[in-house]
Amino acid sequence: MDIIKSDETLDDLQLKGIKVIQKKEGFRFGVDAVMLANFSKVKRNHRVIDLCTGTGIIPFIISGKTECKNILGIEIQKEFVDMANRTSNLNNLNDKVKFLEGDLTNINMLKKIEKADVVTVNPPYKLFNSGIVNPTDRLAIARHEVCCNLEDVIVAARILLKDNGRFFMVHRPDRLADIFTVMRKHKIEPKRVRMVHPVPNKAPNIVLVEGQRDGGAFLKWDDPLNVHNADGTYSDEIIKMYNSDSI
Amino acid sequence: MDIIKSDETLDDLQLKGIKVIQKKEGFRFGVDAVMLANFSKVKRNHRVIDLCTGTGIIPFIISGKTECKNILGIEIQKEFVDMANRTSNLNNLNDKVKFLEGDLTNINMLKKIEKADVVTVNPPYKLFNSGIVNPTDRLAIARHEVCCNLEDVIVAARILLKDNGRFFMVHRPDRLADIFTVMRKHKIEPKRVRMVHPVPNKAPNIVLVEGQRDGGAFLKWDDPLNVHNADGTYSDEIIKMYNSDSI
Repeated sequence: MDIIKSDETLDDLQLKGIKVIQKKEGFRFGVDAVMLANFSKVKRNHRVIDLCTGTGIIPFIISGKTECKNILGIEIQKEFVDMANRTSNLNNLNDKVKFLEGDLTNINMLKKIEKADVVTVNPPYKLFNSGIVNPTDRLAIARHEVCCNLEDVIVAARILLKDNGRFFMVHRPDRLADIFTVMRKHKIEPKRVRMVHPVPNKAPNIVLVEGQRDGGAFLKWDDPLNVHNADGTYSDEIIKMYNSDSI
Repeated sequence: MDIIKSDETLDDLQLKGIKVIQKKEGFRFGVDAVMLANFSKVKRNHRVIDLCTGTGIIPFIISGKTECKNILGIEIQKEFVDMANRTSNLNNLNDKVKFLEGDLTNINMLKKIEKADVVTVNPPYKLFNSGIVNPTDRLAIARHEVCCNLEDVIVAARILLKDNGRFFMVHRPDRLADIFTVMRKHKIEPKRVRMVHPVPNKAPNIVLVEGQRDGGAFLKWDDPLNVHNADGTYSDEIIKMYNSDSI
């Protein structure tokens, strides 16, 4: 059996030689995943769980950039789990980066998983009813709240985190009132926000949020992250994220 | 009796000739009030209520910049209400801009007031327990949550607004999780946010929030507002706010 299927590509992460398997067409990892992996704070010997992991891009970036103990990616779509496992094999990361095919709304399944110091998630951004075409489509599941919604993600993170463990999520600013309300409801306190702007001084279109399980109330705002410069070229900070071996 | 007392000054708003009475020392109106008055959307014939109005700076700016029907400022400190009333007399605005000495936690008082299309508020920013020196001090009451807290302000706004009326508040970004949670609790839906940055590309230190009584969930983010340019001079947008007769 070929490691790479005919509808897939093998792409260089430009990080410690790690290569990832992706579909030629469809959902390919983007700047959101790279920004989340850089925003998250993973320390030596931390256990990390990545929800809605897709093809495992966030676990692979974190494995390359940190000295974490291990990373578990959880994904509902079997085809993505299969790709992520082949990527793990290909990079000899099987001992450190593992994947589980599972539905994060399955509370009994979650309770059996070893708890983590850090939970990361790049969840579906869009509400289920917002312009969805085909709810069985792979891309629709990755982008819309078909299989899980924001509250499912937060509830899962609460179960999977150790006491005072940290939660890192990338999402859309238009959902920030929902995000804060649901995090508070399930006692993952919002601790840090970084707004991502497509160009300097324009409205943000991505938000990075850090929470702490049972943390105290104080919310820090980071300096804005600009993806592009005013002239449309990538900002130095984004270029550095794509080309650096350390956070 | 002198219109201006010996410990007061008469300052030009640079707006339709309006002059305001302020203390020489202590709480003088600042850029927060000017930004809030510009962020708020007041239409022709709107009734406006300004909570925690202090010396009435927000009502006086709005009266100069809009064609609203009338404005009521509510303030708990008698000395400020007296100054605001003298400013109103001095500018011949008594018919349009009125002040009420009252405690906004007094629900029975609030229920007797005619409802408004718009409620504005520049409330105390700081938690009662955060470094307060003297809880009877005029400045402490204006800056710390001594006489009212965030939830009191939101509850008062809910009572004072007409159906679908709009709420405009200036506050601190470190309280934004509290703000969204409490607004949702009392069904004033966050609809628009503008972050204010001291200089471009630095973390925001002020937030402007628009809510709607019983509004639907969708949160729009405005372009950031920079107070200063990178070289420390005031930004064009701030200069325009201070020198323009129209929003």
